[in-house]
This record gives sequence, structure tokens and C-alpha cells, in this order.
Amino acid sequence: MRLYYNHSASQNHKRSAMLLFTPGPTEMEQDIRDIAAMRLPYFRGQEYTKMMLELTENLKYLFRTENTPLTLTASGSGVMEMALLNLLNPGDRVVVLNCGTFGGKWTTMCRSFGVVPHEIKPELGEIPDLEKLSDAITGEVRAVLVTAHETSTGLLNDIKAIGEITRSRGVLLIVDAVSSIGADLFAMDDWHCDCALVSSQKALACMPGLSFIAFSERAWQVVPSVKRHRYYFDAEEYMQNIRRGMVPYTPAMNVTFQVHERLARIRRSGLTAYIDGHVAKAKAFRERMLQSGDFSLFAQRQSNALTSLLLPEGCTMSEVIAFIRDKYDWYVAPNPTQDQRYLRVSHMGAITIENLLELAEKIEEACRSFRKGRK
Amino acid sequence: MRLYYNHSASQNHKRSAMLLFTPGPTEMEQDIRDIAAMRLPYFRGQEYTKMMLELTENLKYLFRTENTPLTLTASGSGVMEMALLNLLNPGDRVVVLNCGTFGGKWTTMCRSFGVVPHEIKPELGEIPDLEKLSDAITGEVRAVLVTAHETSTGLLNDIKAIGEITRSRGVLLIVDAVSSIGADLFAMDDWHCDCALVSSQKALACMPGLSFIAFSERAWQVVPSVKRHRYYFDAEEYMQNIRRGMVPYTPAMNVTFQVHERLARIRRSGLTAYIDGHVAKAKAFRERMLQSGDFSLFAQRQSNALTSLLLPEGCTMSEVIAFIRDKYDWYVAPNPTQDQRYLRVSHMGAITIENLLELAEKIEEACRSFRKGRK
Repeated sequence: MRLYYNHSASQNHKRSAMLLFTPGPTEMEQDIRDIAAMRLPYFRGQEYTKMMLELTENLKYLFRTENTPLTLTASGSGVMEMALLNLLNPGDRVVVLNCGTFGGKWTTMCRSFGVVPHEIKPELGEIPDLEKLSDAITGEVRAVLVTAHETSTGLLNDIKAIGEITRSRGVLLIVDAVSSIGADLFAMDDWHCDCALVSSQKALACMPGLSFIAFSERAWQVVPSVKRHRYYFDAEEYMQNIRRGMVPYTPAMNVTFQVHERLARIRRSGLTAYIDGHVAKAKAFRERMLQSGDFSLFAQRQSNALTSLLLPEGCTMSEVIAFIRDKYDWYVAPNPTQDQRYLRVSHMGAITIENLLELAEKIEEACRSFRKGRK
Repeated sequence: MRLYYNHSASQNHKRSAMLLFTPGPTEMEQDIRDIAAMRLPYFRGQEYTKMMLELTENLKYLFRTENTPLTLTASGSGVMEMALLNLLNPGDRVVVLNCGTFGGKWTTMCRSFGVVPHEIKPELGEIPDLEKLSDAITGEVRAVLVTAHETSTGLLNDIKAIGEITRSRGVLLIVDAVSSIGADLFAMDDWHCDCALVSSQKALACMPGLSFIAFSERAWQVVPSVKRHRYYFDAEEYMQNIRRGMVPYTPAMNVTFQVHERLARIRRSGLTAYIDGHVAKAKAFRERMLQSGDFSLFAQRQSNALTSLLLPEGCTMSEVIAFIRDKYDWYVAPNPTQDQRYLRVSHMGAITIENLLELAEKIEEACRSFRKGRK
């Protein structure tokens, strides 16, 4: 077999024109990438456990929680499963706020684990009616499962408002904040979240491979009552280990070093400043795109992590993406909803306002070419 | 909080004296490490899926199988769980060959998932009596769970002989080959293994974060009959995706690129040559250690991945490890069995015969100092 793929120094050169506007993986700064190439210490030695304790301390700051976030070698889907396996028994009833692909994933996952979901499902991009959510919390409901930033449409849910509802009704609030924490304001404790999770390759702009999950005190009290077969996703096992800076199974160590450095930087500049970096990019890009009047915003309330644009009549998401990819080697991710009406442009990672303004031109160019072709 | 850990260029300098003789993570060559620092393409784009198809093709070569190995973002424990979740129902009876910590992990995991294990448990380091294993396979037994190289003692099990037994008795053979594949001869198909698994940070000497698992045709026929809640570890989901070079959830991409390159190199030089590299290191180290007559081999049949040495009277594993670590910044991993009689020295990764011969001197120095101190 002949191998096409050549991992040489020229690889980065080949990728020099390439830019990712995808919501994970994201572009990473050179010095963050270089951390991945460093030699590793032994993972049960003092250097590593000390680093893991610092990482965990800074994850608390990131989640804005007094609870102890856990570090797992898994994608976001892995820690979503962890939330279910540790907090919900088979037969438990829950309300799922399904605003798109990732909300829908909660539903699928509930069914996979014998949990009975009741869905609140607004139109794609629309702000959900929280009164409906509140009404759905009947006496038997144990938890509400939501997505903070529904990456598939760009919609940002009002977790604070949802947290007030779930607290007053005495049910657990489980939040997939995978592509929101670090880009949007998020306050696990103040907003009464019982479980929140995030991954390394979204707003933290590190390599994929790690996810982080935190449980509230109330959630920890529920865990022992959940009679499930679990091993790799057993929360108590991770909790017992992390007190000593340990992870029960060999972690994706290089990613932990990157995230450690990222969090140290966020801590130095302040989380608000880090979020504001996303705000500035989102604002500049949106203003630029709305200038011509040809585009409007798709999701009604947008995350800072991503802009979803309603495309002009005659343009499809797939065509715009292919045009920009083939002509410029720039990457915008297709919509997992398969909906052709809108385009999602991520603002996470090391892309700049200048990159985004240049992308805006390319999007307009793509749309012009398609509309012309069809006249 | 003041951060002690400084991810600067000086980090590698600080680690210049450090050497890992630990069985994962292992030392990696500079050019393999550098792959981790490269910019990433989008993981659902053509460049990546093409690379993943090649990786998968070369994993077949590594496992020596016609089946399609699956790639997961998880540690070895994760894919051990995957084997159980997809092949064994609650209440199923199995025989576990428990030759140490990792054999014992099969037992613990079986109990976590409602599978009923019958243990064959020889003394640490001793070759198990396969007649006992054969006798334990009664009519109700569904599978035999073994460890190829029991990393906690250095013992290499005779998977070929075990495969003949399980085939003749019509039960599944599930093999944890995490620290054996790539270092020892292993032939999934010829040896009638129904499930085999390996991780990225052992003999493949890449970053931790990925594991690989393959199922035989017979195993795939069992999967639909196993009625389990599963999502992240659902084998069929990974199989459907990998046909198109996809992984269902964002993978630890940088590790996939490293493993791809490693396998391409193994393919060029031949798997036998790669294994022989481990043989040469093991042989040189063992000959050197046995010269003085103070040391002998601990495990009765040793893997090429690691040498386990019986220490002279008066020396303990913990003391030798601490001596070498504190004086030289060289790392030998403590025994997960807690047994103080023996020392395990890994031969995996970018350490050389020269490194091992130098380590031999340091081990002797450590033992001399302790014996002197106690006279």
C-alpha cells in the first residue's frame, strides 16, 4: 500500500493557507501547539499530579463552581454519558430541551440508557418557551437536560433562567456546555446547575481528547442512589483520584498540559477578558455581515462562540462551504441539522477579527457567484 | 494562586536528563512528538478521513487480522469496558485468567457489569496452568478473558495455546493486549482471538489518549444479542462510521496522526523488525542484569515489552525506584501489585540499549547502597 499522507515539516507549510472556522477542532496558537510536542513526565509522579491539582483548581474558576471538576479522556459525548450514568436510573423521567442536534443527542442518549425523555422542541434557531419547559416538569420528572450553546444552530439558551425554574421545582439541571464555557458567561453555582460539562477543543482551543465534568453537592448526593453498571464513567472513582492529582486511567496527558497552560493564561487575564475576546470577534463579524442587507442572523439569541447566518435566497450552506473550501482552503463546518438555509462560522480559537472579516468577503463572493449563476 | 508549572522552551531542557523506563507513557522520538504540534485539518474533511482509512488499514496489519479495528478516544480501560458491553450480557459466566493487576481488572470490571467471573489465579509471575483454565470452561461459560502481557509482573501469556482451547470449546476469547501488541508476536486471526485491544502509549510509543479494539466475525455475530445500555462504547456505531474514515465523536486527532505515522514506519520496516527492536533491548538488558548473579528474572515467561527483575535480599522496589529518581531523574514505575520483591523496567519507546545498560548500573548502585546500609 502506498501511503499518501506525509508527516513532514512540509505538512504545516501545506496547511499555511488553510484556516479552520469550525467549532472544534479550532485553530491553536503555535505556543499552545508546541506544548503537545514536549516530552512527558510519568503520570503518577509528583510533577504531573501537582500540575493536575492546579488544572483542577483552575477548572473551578472556569466553571465558576466550588465543586471539583473531573478530567476524562473522552469526547463531549463521553461525559454526557457520564452525567446520565451517574445521575439517572433506568425508568427515570426527564425533560429535554431539544433545540437542535446536540439537544437531540440528550434524547437519543436517554433512550439508550432507559431514561424516559419528554422533549421541548422549538423550531431550529428559535428561543424556547420556558413556560412550556416549566409546565413539563410534572411530579415524576427527575431532571432537566439542556444544551447551553446549541452548536448546531448557534442558539444560546438562558441557563440562568432555566436554573431558577429547576431549583424552584426541585429537579436536577444537567447542562451540556461543551461549546459555551469560555466563550459565553457561565456560572455553574450561581445558576444552580447540578452538572455541567465542557471539552478541550472548543473555546479552550486545545487539542481534542479531553472533557471535563462537574457535579453539584446535590448531584453528588444522588449518585449513590443510581444503580447502574459503570466503570470508565464512574464519577466517584475519578473524584477519589483527583484529590491526589490522579486520574484513574492513563489520561491524554499532552492535552492536560495544554489545558493547564490555557487556564493559567485565562486566570492571568481574567475569564471576563477571555470571553470578551469572543464577544469582539462575534460583534465585528456580525456587523460586517449585516451591512449589505443580504444576510441576517439565524439563531434568535446567539452564542459568542459562533455566528449562524441566514443565507440569501438561492444560496445553500453546502455550496457556500464547498466554494470557500475549494477556492481558499478555508473550512466552515456543515450543519449537522442538514438545514441548507444557514451557515455557522465559529469564533473560537486563534482566528482573528481580520480572518473573520476576510471570511465575510469570501462568503459574499460565494453567494454572489451562485445567485448570478441562477439568474 | 501562583502557578508553579511553566510551559516554556526551558521545560524540555529541564527534562533533558529525565528518562522514562515506564510502561506508558514511553519516550517518543522528536519527530513523532512534533506531529502533535502540527496544525489540524477539520475532522470530517477529506484529508482526515483518508488518513483514518489508512490508519485503519495499517491497524489490521498490526493486529494481524482481516477484521476492522476501531479507534476510540479512551484509555485501555475504556476499550476493556467496550469489549464487555458489546459481548457479554448481565448474568453471563466467564473465566478470567488473573495473573496480576490487569487480569484482576477484568474480574472487577465483570462484577461492575453483572458478569460472573471464575478466576484462574496463579502466583504472581508464574505461568498459569492451562489445564486448569480448560477445566474451568464448563457448559455455561461464554468467554475467556485474558491479558496477553500482564504489565504488572512482566508475564507473557501463551495466547496461541489459549486460543486453541477456546476455539475447541466454542467460547469467545477476549484479549487485553494493551502492552503486548507491537512488542510481542501477536496474531489475532491465526490465534482465534475474538476481541483484542491495544493503546497508543505502549509499544506504539505515541501520546496517550487513543485505544484500538478489533472484533472477530464470530464476535460481531454476538453483539446484537447483547442487550445492554451503551452509547459511547457502542461497537456498531464505530464500525458504521469507520467505513467512511469517520469516528462518531471528535477523536484525539493529534494522537491519530502520530499513530498513523508510527504504523506507516512499522509497515515499511516490517512488524517483525519492530518487534525485534524490543527483543534486542530485552536481551541486552537481561544479560547485563544476570551477569553478577545478584538478580534473576521474576516472571517465568517475559514479554519483550518489559523485564521484571527479582531484587537481591534487602532491596525493595520502592527504595530502588526512589534512589534512581532522586539521584538521576530516571523513572521506573512502581508495581501496581505493591509487591516489593521485583522491579519492572520497560523497553518500549525511544529508549536505547545504551540507556538500558546505564540503568542497569544505576539499579546495581541502588541495591549496593541499600545492602551496605543494612549490614
